[in-house]
Amino acid sequence: MTTTAKLLLHCPDRPGILAEVTDFITVNKGNIIYLDQYVDRVENIFFMRIEWELAGFLVPQEKIEDYFETLYAQKYDMNFRLYFSDHKPRMAIFVSKMSHCLFDLLARYTAGEWNVEIPLIISNHPDMQHVAERFGIPYHVFPITRENKAEQEQKEMELLAQHRVHFIVLARYMQVISQQMIHAYPNRIINIHHSFLPAFVGAKLYHAAFERGVKIIGATSHYVTTELDAGPIIEQDVVRITHKDSVQDLVNKGKDLEKIVLSRAVQKHIERKVLAYKNKTVIFN
Amino acid sequence: MTTTAKLLLHCPDRPGILAEVTDFITVNKGNIIYLDQYVDRVENIFFMRIEWELAGFLVPQEKIEDYFETLYAQKYDMNFRLYFSDHKPRMAIFVSKMSHCLFDLLARYTAGEWNVEIPLIISNHPDMQHVAERFGIPYHVFPITRENKAEQEQKEMELLAQHRVHFIVLARYMQVISQQMIHAYPNRIINIHHSFLPAFVGAKLYHAAFERGVKIIGATSHYVTTELDAGPIIEQDVVRITHKDSVQDLVNKGKDLEKIVLSRAVQKHIERKVLAYKNKTVIFN
Amino acid sequence: MTTTAKLLLHCPDRPGILAEVTDFITVNKGNIIYLDQYVDRVENIFFMRIEWELAGFLVPQEKIEDYFETLYAQKYDMNFRLYFSDHKPRMAIFVSKMSHCLFDLLARYTAGEWNVEIPLIISNHPDMQHVAERFGIPYHVFPITRENKAEQEQKEMELLAQHRVHFIVLARYMQVISQQMIHAYPNRIINIHHSFLPAFVGAKLYHAAFERGVKIIGATSHYVTTELDAGPIIEQDVVRITHKDSVQDLVNKGKDLEKIVLSRAVQKHIERKVLAYKNKTVIFN
Amino acid sequence: MTTTAKLLLHCPDRPGILAEVTDFITVNKGNIIYLDQYVDRVENIFFMRIEWELAGFLVPQEKIEDYFETLYAQKYDMNFRLYFSDHKPRMAIFVSKMSHCLFDLLARYTAGEWNVEIPLIISNHPDMQHVAERFGIPYHVFPITRENKAEQEQKEMELLAQHRVHFIVLARYMQVISQQMIHAYPNRIINIHHSFLPAFVGAKLYHAAFERGVKIIGATSHYVTTELDAGPIIEQDVVRITHKDSVQDLVNKGKDLEKIVLSRAVQKHIERKVLAYKNKTVIFN
Repeated sequence: MTTTAKLLLHCPDRPGILAEVTDFITVNKGNIIYLDQYVDRVENIFFMRIEWELAGFLVPQEKIEDYFETLYAQKYDMNFRLYFSDHKPRMAIFVSKMSHCLFDLLARYTAGEWNVEIPLIISNHPDMQHVAERFGIPYHVFPITRENKAEQEQKEMELLAQHRVHFIVLARYMQVISQQMIHAYPNRIINIHHSFLPAFVGAKLYHAAFERGVKIIGATSHYVTTELDAGPIIEQDVVRITHKDSVQDLVNKGKDLEKIVLSRAVQKHIERKVLAYKNKTVIFN
Repeated sequence: MTTTAKLLLHCPDRPGILAEVTDFITVNKGNIIYLDQYVDRVENIFFMRIEWELAGFLVPQEKIEDYFETLYAQKYDMNFRLYFSDHKPRMAIFVSKMSHCLFDLLARYTAGEWNVEIPLIISNHPDMQHVAERFGIPYHVFPITRENKAEQEQKEMELLAQHRVHFIVLARYMQVISQQMIHAYPNRIINIHHSFLPAFVGAKLYHAAFERGVKIIGATSHYVTTELDAGPIIEQDVVRITHKDSVQDLVNKGKDLEKIVLSRAVQKHIERKVLAYKNKTVIFN
Repeated sequence: MTTTAKLLLHCPDRPGILAEVTDFITVNKGNIIYLDQYVDRVENIFFMRIEWELAGFLVPQEKIEDYFETLYAQKYDMNFRLYFSDHKPRMAIFVSKMSHCLFDLLARYTAGEWNVEIPLIISNHPDMQHVAERFGIPYHVFPITRENKAEQEQKEMELLAQHRVHFIVLARYMQVISQQMIHAYPNRIINIHHSFLPAFVGAKLYHAAFERGVKIIGATSHYVTTELDAGPIIEQDVVRITHKDSVQDLVNKGKDLEKIVLSRAVQKHIERKVLAYKNKTVIFN
Repeated sequence: MTTTAKLLLHCPDRPGILAEVTDFITVNKGNIIYLDQYVDRVENIFFMRIEWELAGFLVPQEKIEDYFETLYAQKYDMNFRLYFSDHKPRMAIFVSKMSHCLFDLLARYTAGEWNVEIPLIISNHPDMQHVAERFGIPYHVFPITRENKAEQEQKEMELLAQHRVHFIVLARYMQVISQQMIHAYPNRIINIHHSFLPAFVGAKLYHAAFERGVKIIGATSHYVTTELDAGPIIEQDVVRITHKDSVQDLVNKGKDLEKIVLSRAVQKHIERKVLAYKNKTVIFN
């Protein structure tokens, strides 16, 4: 498989952007293998994801970003990111005591489903150490108390930096992430929330769903922002329940939802198919 | 088809209730054609729906309620309701300006899908008059203002009483129902709420869903209680959306959900398959 | 709202098509309000749907087709269709004895949801006359026997021609359409099949689903081709069932599916968002 | 948690069965914690699942089966099975080269979600050895050729017998099971079929779905019978796809479906909530 470049961008919509960008690629002998664009007509923003093969492309790989910046980004006031398929992003997993999401992430990783490296797992509890060991991934425990939280997060961030981690997956990590870490990884911390947001924020959500007597439960994967449970939603899904389901039944059904919804979101992130804008996401498919 | 009796009951769970009740029916030569029971082990409440054919049943139809009250209800502290299939419940529809739920209800009614009578439609606007006329159902307009609301509702209730209406379906009726009417029809006013409750209460819900950037929207049918949008949920369903959907797209997709969810709830109510207990429902199937 | 042009096309994929077509529109002062493109990399076919406002467009509306043919279609070996929003397509409904799809189509039509004209309804039975009358649409009965089938279809086709019908919706029309009519309306006859194709072809499908013990049933809307139940699929959906559901329950649940799936397919067809290629469809959204 | 007895039975429907059976349990001081019954009115068969606590039950655990046989089974021509919660069923997994279902089963097993023992994994290929090792479960390879198939299956069956295996889960095992083994494990071999049966039987199913242009794909878990892909269905689920999905996308989406559908079926089997009758299942919930 040849190396490809993936370009994600957004800018105020103006005529000609799409034509110019595709022209830039085709004129320089790039073979476009993916193009999806979308115009948000309320905000008047143009979004695009374009992917092309680098074999034979006339602009050297290391200069593409610079050229694009000079030729188009300034002209169109673009916000863009360029990724290359020969570069593997590095992902950290944060986990507490539940194994279902962790197993699902690591099974996919081990099966080679994702173009990603997982250099470490971080937890506030030792419980999931055995899972990390089964997959041969270093597991670091940082117990968190009210008193040591800032300090421990500081150490975690140093560890993440040291491992050159690009993004973080909270696989049912039962701690609120501090602003400092969120700012260090903007739209690069993916959480799984065990309800159909915006229904049921906070904790004890399956109890709340049980009490309310809903007929469907859900799970939501979103980027973490400083407002709790309010970041851009990447993926959601639901499952039907009945009055016969106990809280424990809801927990069990919810776990299947959570792991699939989280893994779908992580996959889209890895494939560079998510573009967050304000508090929403554009999902390319 | 022979006449059947449908008995719905709930009471504190104790051993032997199910055996005694089924025994009462079989000993008296009733042929049980449906039995569903459920024990809520949190509240320790026994729920049952049982249906049997009256042909050959030794207890006369008009005395069953009395016998059952004497023999079992008092002994087990039961709350029960008895319905007969040869009795058609009478249903009123309340509507404002949108036709989709109204058309769906009337199409089913006209096709003979439901064992129900619809003697009248009530609205706060004249817009849906033409729909009522297509189906030959009297349409009464009661314009509502802040000042005349109590007075108009009083007139509506008189009309409902006069038509011996058993239950009310709010087919996107854009008015809050007063406590007085709710108390007159306890768990007998069915509303369709255009969101996946408890997400998004109040009004302008598709705008809210759009703003939040959800990936799935829903609709909820519930009994109306005095707390807004908080009554026992009968039925919910959802549909997937994307960032490409405008508010208008959400409205359109939502309309299909709303009419199907409302009609499913109404059907279950007509078939006597819903038993509300506290703020939840047991749905027999 | 200003008039828009909608262009749907497909051709062998080559670099530059997208850039050239969008360039043609923007250079001529057309404001693009929709663009979706897709490349089938197995067949190497480029598909596009593009919509732009005609206000201020430099090419006169009546000459666009000619210009496009000359400038691009020949060059790229394109197959294209051009539609204008100020042109209402004319749709005929064929129905037999069931009302659910018919009511759903006519309710949407009456509510003004669709940019379409419905000049007539054709049936092989008189049963649905009353529905047509409620909506004030002429209803023509052509009873079909093995002997008169060719002759009756001939008369139907004359009637369709006379009413300048562009496409036909089979709203549970229980007759196989002859090759002659299919050839006259290629990819312009939309059927609703009451199963999740390719499971269960032919007739008595809910019985078949019941016998097989499936846990989910479906409905499929597709263009009619000369091979029975094998045309390009436009839309499908499913609903969960249980062992408790009788054949009649399946029929009832299926009816809700059928009408929604058919109406979604019809809407996409009316909005020119379906492009059939070989035996599959590209659905623009 | 106290030990419970789970009784599953079916027999020709006659009045009084339910009353007698529940009476037997309550009279003997058994506390019923679950009861679900269902009458198939087409076949006239009564199905029941009842579960009660053995603490204080007057009939000794080891005599319940005998008593029940003598008192009720003969009288009502019942087919029944009795299970005790203090008995862990033993399950073998058969796998070929794909890991997704295997990982999902083992993750649940390791997390203690299921009351089951997994003493061994059998495969026709060595590829999944590493997964078995991560979870510390013996992995036996029996390469299959046309010539050695009968012989190898014989060895497998000896191994299964030696490990006192009660039921087998085919976690994408790409071999047809012989009649001999099927007869040895009637309704105790659970397969996952990667389509929405009865659509697409045989092999290369995602290719077939892609070719047909379906808009939804599914997965089906069923008991294996001697007729290929035709055994009683335990669970099905589906996921929406679009024309943009390649065969590989279908495979990936399908894998998530397959593992969840298979695990749901296995869980229901372990919980003794499935009762196969003829070619269908009754699923208690």
